[in-house]
Amino acid sequence: MRIGIAGLGTVGAGVVQLLHANADLITARAGQPITVAAVSARDRKRDRFLPANPMEWVDDAVQLATMPGLDAVVELIGGSDGPALQLVRASLQNGRPVVTANKALLAVHGATLPRTAPLAFEAAVAGGIPVIKALREGLAANRITRVAGILNGTCNYILTAMREQKRDFADVLAEAQALGYAEADPATDIDGVDAAHKLAILAALAFGHPVRFDAVYVEGIRQISALDIAFAEELGYRIKLLGIARRTDAGVEARVHPCLVPQNAPIARVDGVFNAVVAEGDAVGRVMLEGRGAGAGPTASAVVADLIDLARGRLTPVWGQDTPADDAVVPIGQHLGAYYLRLMVIDKPGVIADVAAILRDHGVSLESLLQHGRSPGESVPVVLVTHEVREHAMRAAADAIAALPAVLEAPALIRIEPG
Amino acid sequence: MRIGIAGLGTVGAGVVQLLHANADLITARAGQPITVAAVSARDRKRDRFLPANPMEWVDDAVQLATMPGLDAVVELIGGSDGPALQLVRASLQNGRPVVTANKALLAVHGATLPRTAPLAFEAAVAGGIPVIKALREGLAANRITRVAGILNGTCNYILTAMREQKRDFADVLAEAQALGYAEADPATDIDGVDAAHKLAILAALAFGHPVRFDAVYVEGIRQISALDIAFAEELGYRIKLLGIARRTDAGVEARVHPCLVPQNAPIARVDGVFNAVVAEGDAVGRVMLEGRGAGAGPTASAVVADLIDLARGRLTPVWGQDTPADDAVVPIGQHLGAYYLRLMVIDKPGVIADVAAILRDHGVSLESLLQHGRSPGESVPVVLVTHEVREHAMRAAADAIAALPAVLEAPALIRIEPG
Repeated sequence: MRIGIAGLGTVGAGVVQLLHANADLITARAGQPITVAAVSARDRKRDRFLPANPMEWVDDAVQLATMPGLDAVVELIGGSDGPALQLVRASLQNGRPVVTANKALLAVHGATLPRTAPLAFEAAVAGGIPVIKALREGLAANRITRVAGILNGTCNYILTAMREQKRDFADVLAEAQALGYAEADPATDIDGVDAAHKLAILAALAFGHPVRFDAVYVEGIRQISALDIAFAEELGYRIKLLGIARRTDAGVEARVHPCLVPQNAPIARVDGVFNAVVAEGDAVGRVMLEGRGAGAGPTASAVVADLIDLARGRLTPVWGQDTPADDAVVPIGQHLGAYYLRLMVIDKPGVIADVAAILRDHGVSLESLLQHGRSPGESVPVVLVTHEVREHAMRAAADAIAALPAVLEAPALIRIEPG
Repeated sequence: MRIGIAGLGTVGAGVVQLLHANADLITARAGQPITVAAVSARDRKRDRFLPANPMEWVDDAVQLATMPGLDAVVELIGGSDGPALQLVRASLQNGRPVVTANKALLAVHGATLPRTAPLAFEAAVAGGIPVIKALREGLAANRITRVAGILNGTCNYILTAMREQKRDFADVLAEAQALGYAEADPATDIDGVDAAHKLAILAALAFGHPVRFDAVYVEGIRQISALDIAFAEELGYRIKLLGIARRTDAGVEARVHPCLVPQNAPIARVDGVFNAVVAEGDAVGRVMLEGRGAGAGPTASAVVADLIDLARGRLTPVWGQDTPADDAVVPIGQHLGAYYLRLMVIDKPGVIADVAAILRDHGVSLESLLQHGRSPGESVPVVLVTHEVREHAMRAAADAIAALPAVLEAPALIRIEPG
């Protein structure tokens, strides 16, 4: 099988190196050699420590879609639009299979890509963890009721360091940037956009059709404080940024936001740069997959697995099934769940009574309330954990509470998830 | 696709029910309906709450191999030989694909089964967790250096209950039998045989060829005491029955035995009847999969996933590659690792010195030694943790120590694994 690779950054170079290093076993498992016949990269002079293969260099990546003699194209350019999208569309239209690691492209344009050739994207979600294959094939007999995942290693690294070292967000982010774990412009990661791209893909696999990316609810981790992490710990939880796709009676949920998850839930123990995905199926129950979600080796592992599938002729409809279902995405206001609400209040008689009255008036019932020590007249944190309630009621209550004179800053409102 | 099912116990009935319950999505994912056209079971009168399908009943399961009009056979009879083996051989020889959950058959006869038709066996290891697919396809680009798994839910349930409730083995086993978590004759589970069957399959996938089943080293959990579980906890470990396949310079290791694994290793947290498999690949690093390893639903989930693969024409060589490698299995005496050694000694001066001298003479170096309190003249436990040493040296030292007059019972020797 002769392939063309577009994009020779860390991942592209990793793919070339892996095909070279494990050529013997990849040939045995693919049933044929996989040869890099052509590559395209912005700067062909940069030394990438590539094996000295006689591959053709192409200036315009889109040429790989139609260049004679190629059996598949590997798109590792990145970005939801531009040359990546042009190449993927042109390849598929030309009947040429595509392997991509491009989550943004799949999340935004997945529903409208041509179905004229196989499209494989194991590397787009959770790096080397074979989660696409698990959902699309391994659990294919199940109605998937819920998928939840730690999908962004940068966020998980930051939240883990904040908890273990009792440090603040800004401080840990700066360190992560210095260490290369976070980008100079970290917004895509820490605002949850990258996780949302991946969640949109998982949701499409779970439900058999793409969800509209702009219908995915997204909230990042900038607002998470060391204080909330400490309170969560005291209450028996950890704070994780999760992407969650869930089937409910009203439709499907697709959301990315920080969550309190019980400390004894397996996903709560997944720390640092590791990723994990929990899938719940009606026959299989809960299955969790865990591993490295990024890096040259893990991502190349997933790309080459897709190439081996193509070489073996192991094909699957892009979202796992022939006849797409069509469920509406439920707005976040309809979400039914428990909440953690942390207030900073002036410690004086009557404040808790006012807060409790507002909660009662909005139909929010309390599971627990935590206030440590007394500092009359000063600012103290008060933490409330609710029973299940609709989000619009919870938010209305939080807004009314925020307007109380004794409440000093915007309340921290974090959803509680089973993990 | 028309299938014949041999064996209608819990799993067989579960497969029929799942095909019925999720017929719509299974059809969409398989690209065609999957119909149970024929079944064979010992007692056709037993009420199995099966959907009222017009399926043919066959008295001799082996008939399903050649009966006209079937596209695949599902073997759920069990047992490494007898009718299960006859049916599987006859089907494959007839060019008819086989799906089986039969780990014993695969472990013992996997190397000599005809290669004349596809053979799928996701349900044979770790129930509903798609670990066969992950190893054989998802991680196909990797040289697998090590696979380790909690492969027997009964043993994991017993070890978990012993730890959490500080109870003895016999006591917990009796309770597990009463609850139906352990068989009336529990030997296959608690002596490690079932885990060894599964490990042999994982080893074959990791190394690309079956290992001889009688070359797998097997040790069960009968000898594990509440005392050792408590000491392990104190030392920062948990005791798990693991199946381990590992590539070493001297050849491959394939072994099942209780291990001390560090408490912070993800596999140490997998409790109760859950199974988990950790795979280490040269590109992907460590990936862990976790879920329910048994039961009608999870096992049926795996069987039907295999049927969907067959319906889609997604085929894979039985051990993942065309050209089998051939590595020798290293005898357990050559194993290099650290050990936990627990002695019951008479508490008197000079005993520890004698023990230390024997260890020194056998080239065993100590990482730590634990002896709590003093009871002069009485029996007390002494726990030793060694650095890495060859097993034959460790065993010779343990034998010599056991022969000391002050050592009162056979020492407990448990291998330490990274998890």
